[in-house]
Amino acid sequence: MKYGRVYNFSAGPAIMPEPVLEEIAAEVLNYHGSGMSVMEMSHRSAVFQKIRDDAEADLRKLLNVPDNYRVLFIQGGGTLQFSMVPINLLSGGTACYIESGAWSHKAIPEAKRYGNVIVSASSADRNFSYVPDCSALTFPAGTDYVYVCENETIHGTTFWNLPDTHGVPLVSDQSSMFLSRPCDVSRYGLIFAGVQKNVGPAGMTIVIVRGDLVRDDLDPKVPLYLRYKTHADNDSMYNTPNCWSLYCCGKVFRYLLELGGLEEMERRNREKAAILYDFLDSSQFFRGTAEKADRSLMNVPFVTPSPAQDAEVVAAAKAAGLENLKGHKSVGGLRASIFNAMPKEGVEALVAFLDKYEKAHA
Amino acid sequence: MKYGRVYNFSAGPAIMPEPVLEEIAAEVLNYHGSGMSVMEMSHRSAVFQKIRDDAEADLRKLLNVPDNYRVLFIQGGGTLQFSMVPINLLSGGTACYIESGAWSHKAIPEAKRYGNVIVSASSADRNFSYVPDCSALTFPAGTDYVYVCENETIHGTTFWNLPDTHGVPLVSDQSSMFLSRPCDVSRYGLIFAGVQKNVGPAGMTIVIVRGDLVRDDLDPKVPLYLRYKTHADNDSMYNTPNCWSLYCCGKVFRYLLELGGLEEMERRNREKAAILYDFLDSSQFFRGTAEKADRSLMNVPFVTPSPAQDAEVVAAAKAAGLENLKGHKSVGGLRASIFNAMPKEGVEALVAFLDKYEKAHA
Repeated sequence: MKYGRVYNFSAGPAIMPEPVLEEIAAEVLNYHGSGMSVMEMSHRSAVFQKIRDDAEADLRKLLNVPDNYRVLFIQGGGTLQFSMVPINLLSGGTACYIESGAWSHKAIPEAKRYGNVIVSASSADRNFSYVPDCSALTFPAGTDYVYVCENETIHGTTFWNLPDTHGVPLVSDQSSMFLSRPCDVSRYGLIFAGVQKNVGPAGMTIVIVRGDLVRDDLDPKVPLYLRYKTHADNDSMYNTPNCWSLYCCGKVFRYLLELGGLEEMERRNREKAAILYDFLDSSQFFRGTAEKADRSLMNVPFVTPSPAQDAEVVAAAKAAGLENLKGHKSVGGLRASIFNAMPKEGVEALVAFLDKYEKAHA
Repeated sequence: MKYGRVYNFSAGPAIMPEPVLEEIAAEVLNYHGSGMSVMEMSHRSAVFQKIRDDAEADLRKLLNVPDNYRVLFIQGGGTLQFSMVPINLLSGGTACYIESGAWSHKAIPEAKRYGNVIVSASSADRNFSYVPDCSALTFPAGTDYVYVCENETIHGTTFWNLPDTHGVPLVSDQSSMFLSRPCDVSRYGLIFAGVQKNVGPAGMTIVIVRGDLVRDDLDPKVPLYLRYKTHADNDSMYNTPNCWSLYCCGKVFRYLLELGGLEEMERRNREKAAILYDFLDSSQFFRGTAEKADRSLMNVPFVTPSPAQDAEVVAAAKAAGLENLKGHKSVGGLRASIFNAMPKEGVEALVAFLDKYEKAHA
């Protein structure tokens, strides 16, 4: 491949679009005639303000974000959002969590620090290989929000149907599916996404929050940085943001718009995922671990008949330029993350490799 | 200048060493034959683990960090440290703050959220143009820590003598002087520094904390991300760190070691600062605003006889390739930040410009 690059199936930080990286490389020493790198630029400068504002505008266009929603860029990863969501939204009531995998599971104890938490549904009984049926769920009076992790990166499942919250704000961790398909933002109270999976370099989380949920009556003990209002009131520039990540993510937003937006991304992602799932479904050696109805378009965990063979395939794939296929230890086996930036050719190369491997070893 | 670059006197994010930026530019698409960008690399990969470990090892070498101190890489900027310091260190006692400028001033109300705070000394009476005399300060029994901002970026002062805390842990915000001169880490309980001033790209704060101050008996309501222990127990990889900033900062650490370490940086920084201060002291038109005894080597605020002339100089300097000389609004005038990465030639060019301007306009 160009520049000696490999096909990188990492679950995050993860592959970025090559044309975007080419632009970035060319601008490292001097951004658009400014005489300096974006890394060296005051966040209060007009040049950087435009980078920030363009990024937000393009993201709003991509997702068609309604005017009454704020777009925030916050450091600290999804982990900090596990705390910020309950700290900002749980006002003496109850939070209802749907536990569908490792990441929603991790968010629950963090929420319990701040108030009453109910696990309304869980798929822990079968190692999170499916999304719990939420069609008949009800939530008690006084529920402040309902929480889902809309795509579980480790277990490879996604919500194809969101729970009906009957007006209670829905909070969604979209980290590993953000911008992979169209999304009706008005159905949510809050969406957050660590950018290091489907957008850009780690160290920034995008929060899209309905304006009325940005409160100013929080406990005085809540740290300034953990208040959505601090970020909302200052266009996410109360203090120095992760300027580099914002710049790179802005380039990705523009790139996605140029490709045709999220409808086109969904078309491509469905096409890529089908190539891999069709192979797995027809294989006698490899087997997908997530239930078919709940399969993610982004993260595809699969296994061979034994852990020893799993490891052999991972090693052989690496030697063939197919990197980071080892599954997470809690699921085992292999995992191919095929985010927006993974070209169809990468998935085809993976399937060709697996097919050849099966024929030679099975 | 090379690559059409300017001399960038920004107070942060700020200038980085050109040889480091050249290396970064060359590695954007493929880091050391890994086949991917550092931006695309799993933080759990062996390649990235080495980047992280080398960065910590080189930083420890630069500062001669004792073994009983932990080095942490945390997101959220100095602002989050304003909260994390009292949350982690204030255990029912008192915190004593020395208020010497805008940044220590900002840290105080954040600490007050969590306990008893005394302002032991302040230079607010003369707009923070000096460092309060701390030679005779005493701190009450039960003081958990004494806090200083060791270099005030906006007001251009620095502590040339640290307060004697009589065994109470000293906490220092070193953001705008970090690695500018040798530092005896063993004198401190905790040092923190946002890297975007004297090291690398924004979005990471380095915390160097004495091991016994990393506590595990905090209030259950303290968010996981805000506990130093979360980061210390996981080598700052509990969750995905700002990998890009860590990588760039690691390159800067190595570059400083190659130049001769912090003794050599102090020699260079004293030489550069003297060029500018000597000019200001001899000028009839420009005047430094900080008291001579407390002058920073890094941030040099100065004024002309009027705000209108200040603005004219800033504009004329910009046209001459000397950027970001506008002073902070709370001080007015001009400010030249001459961090480690500013070459002597940049300071000489600034002085030549100011001298010429004075002769033409004064």
